[in-house]
Amino acid sequence: MSVIYDRVALIGLGLIASSMFWAMKRNGLAREVTGYARSAATRDAARRIGLCDHVCDTVAEAVKDADLVVLAIPVGVMGAVAAEIGPHLKPGATVTDVGSVKRDVIENVGPHIPETVHFVPGHPVAGTEHSGPDSGFAELFDNRWCLLTPPEGTDLTAVAELRRFWEGLGSNVEEMEADHHDLVLAVTSHAPHLIAYTMVGVADDLRRVTDSEVIQYSAAGFRDFTRIAASDPTMWRDVFLTNKDATLEILGRFTEELFALQRAIRTGDGAHLHDYFTRTRAIRRGIIEAGQDTAAPNFGRAQKPV
Amino acid sequence: MSVIYDRVALIGLGLIASSMFWAMKRNGLAREVTGYARSAATRDAARRIGLCDHVCDTVAEAVKDADLVVLAIPVGVMGAVAAEIGPHLKPGATVTDVGSVKRDVIENVGPHIPETVHFVPGHPVAGTEHSGPDSGFAELFDNRWCLLTPPEGTDLTAVAELRRFWEGLGSNVEEMEADHHDLVLAVTSHAPHLIAYTMVGVADDLRRVTDSEVIQYSAAGFRDFTRIAASDPTMWRDVFLTNKDATLEILGRFTEELFALQRAIRTGDGAHLHDYFTRTRAIRRGIIEAGQDTAAPNFGRAQKPV
Ligand SMILES: NC(=O)c1ccc[n+]([C@@H]2O[C@H](COP(=O)([O-])OP(=O)(O)OC[C@H]3O[C@@H](n4cnc5c(N)ncnc54)[C@H](OP(=O)(O)O)[C@@H]3O)[C@@H](O)[C@H]2O)c1
Ligand SMILES: NC(=O)c1ccc[n+]([C@@H]2O[C@H](COP(=O)([O-])OP(=O)(O)OC[C@H]3O[C@@H](n4cnc5c(N)ncnc54)[C@H](OP(=O)(O)O)[C@@H]3O)[C@@H](O)[C@H]2O)c1
Repeated sequence: MSVIYDRVALIGLGLIASSMFWAMKRNGLAREVTGYARSAATRDAARRIGLCDHVCDTVAEAVKDADLVVLAIPVGVMGAVAAEIGPHLKPGATVTDVGSVKRDVIENVGPHIPETVHFVPGHPVAGTEHSGPDSGFAELFDNRWCLLTPPEGTDLTAVAELRRFWEGLGSNVEEMEADHHDLVLAVTSHAPHLIAYTMVGVADDLRRVTDSEVIQYSAAGFRDFTRIAASDPTMWRDVFLTNKDATLEILGRFTEELFALQRAIRTGDGAHLHDYFTRTRAIRRGIIEAGQDTAAPNFGRAQKPV
Repeated sequence: MSVIYDRVALIGLGLIASSMFWAMKRNGLAREVTGYARSAATRDAARRIGLCDHVCDTVAEAVKDADLVVLAIPVGVMGAVAAEIGPHLKPGATVTDVGSVKRDVIENVGPHIPETVHFVPGHPVAGTEHSGPDSGFAELFDNRWCLLTPPEGTDLTAVAELRRFWEGLGSNVEEMEADHHDLVLAVTSHAPHLIAYTMVGVADDLRRVTDSEVIQYSAAGFRDFTRIAASDPTMWRDVFLTNKDATLEILGRFTEELFALQRAIRTGDGAHLHDYFTRTRAIRRGIIEAGQDTAAPNFGRAQKPV
């Protein structure tokens, strides 16, 4: 592949930014990549592992002359960081972000972007439970979707270029409206995360079942929830606070449905339970056929951890 | 390892029974293994893949002369099958089961076991989302726990022998009281399964988000839930109907906690959310250190399904 942006600036050097860096290098999508993170510790860690061609000590220096600026930081600080970089952006440059929520980012970042700069919000639908500069890998976005949610009137060339960039990183790209994005992600990500966090919290809280029992007998299902519930607390706090309405709507639907199933258990309505459990299998098949998950039992994880 | 039971009868030829068979053969724990399943189709499938030394067409024939009889069938039919085999059991034999619920099995199977036969209920805490005779593999129980819940007065030699047998299959063995088992498993398995089924049902039901969106963007968390929600409907219907009280108790606690988190989202209480999400990480670490899960990101599953 060939260079798409001459100079890319990664703001934030965590899981997503570091995966983008290694994928850019794998496919030669940028000539030079600068990086910046808030703490000196993270900037030093990045320098040690060769993450970015140049790690800068100020965000202004990192974005200066960049053709593409990527905000890869928690959703809750996007606005403040945008305000900081606004005056230093190169005319004609594109600013994008990778935040898991889109309406809130548009509202908070948009006003700080100068008229001469394009703002194209994005969200790669790929991740792991790990975070920080060491957690990235070039394959993270392969065959996963990246959603772009350009507001009306966004420059079409800038959008097309960013699309090519994400395709170069290995993704399939789709455009959609920001509010719809936030609803879809509330279903496929935000509500499931809150539910997993809750279940793990409940297990941890029970007096009559010890933590060591919870741990030893976790292979019966619970351990899957703990992976999700090990995700970064700051990122997820920000997601829930900034995608409040859609998350609460889906959780409302969830509770309603859970109550119906609880009632079926209480009244012994086996037919209702059996029907419900049969219907949910089709979606799993769809996900495997779409290449979004493995068909191997237990996700093919090593039976004996290595 | 050496033979522990001369002749073992597997009643039901699904995931658990077939995994037990391959693990017995791997370690030479039985001289001869007979098998029986309800349908001719399953019995034929078993014969085709060499599952069991001898697949019988009646359950009476399968258990005759067996030193160990394993009930590896859904919890809801344990009582009826026990009634059927009771008259054919060899004096001095041991009957066990692998059901995911223990109090209900004890109440329904116990009365049908002759005085001359030992009944030692058990539950291997290991599984996958697959079922049927083709789904088993010898490693399923390696380093997983098997819980025995012998009622008071159970013959100690019979319990010790069954313990050695499960250790031979690769498991760690623990004894506990049946009611406590049912509560612990409600936390680590039954409630998580119902929650996963519910979340997948909600996603499938929403009018404003299409199934194909749910599938494409599932890698953001949702796909994990779909694995659990692809488990066998009959098995899970029976689990919920027979472990009603403990499951409903845990779901009640879960709903309470979920409401508190929803309130925190609604009122913008970021500190509460951040604290909660930090606390839940420790359990994940415990599970990985106990060898009950892999530390690899996303369970180490193939990024591109193979
Ligand atoms: N993780 C996922 O699965 C996933 C998937 C898709 C999208 N996302 C989105 O991607 C974004 C980044 O997530 P991530 O997983 O890469 O996070 P991460 O691994 O936790 O890294 C976050 C980075 O942001 C930096 N940062 C935080 N506050 C900052 C500030 N005020 N100014 C400058 N840098 C700051 C951090 O620097 P320090 O290390 O110095 O604190 C760190 O380098 C989030 O918006 C998230 O919603 C995440
Ligand atoms: N799956 C798990 O993850 C897991 C883990 C631990 C414990 N368990 C427990 O293990 C038991 C078996 O589960 P599994 O996953 O092995 O199930 P499975 O793969 O669905 O197999 C169930 C077997 O039981 C047979 N069966 C059903 N009703 C029967 C009857 N009335 N008489 C004789 N055979 C009958 C079926 O025969 P047909 O094929 O002819 O219908 C099939 O061979 C259940 O009690 C479950 O709670 C399961």
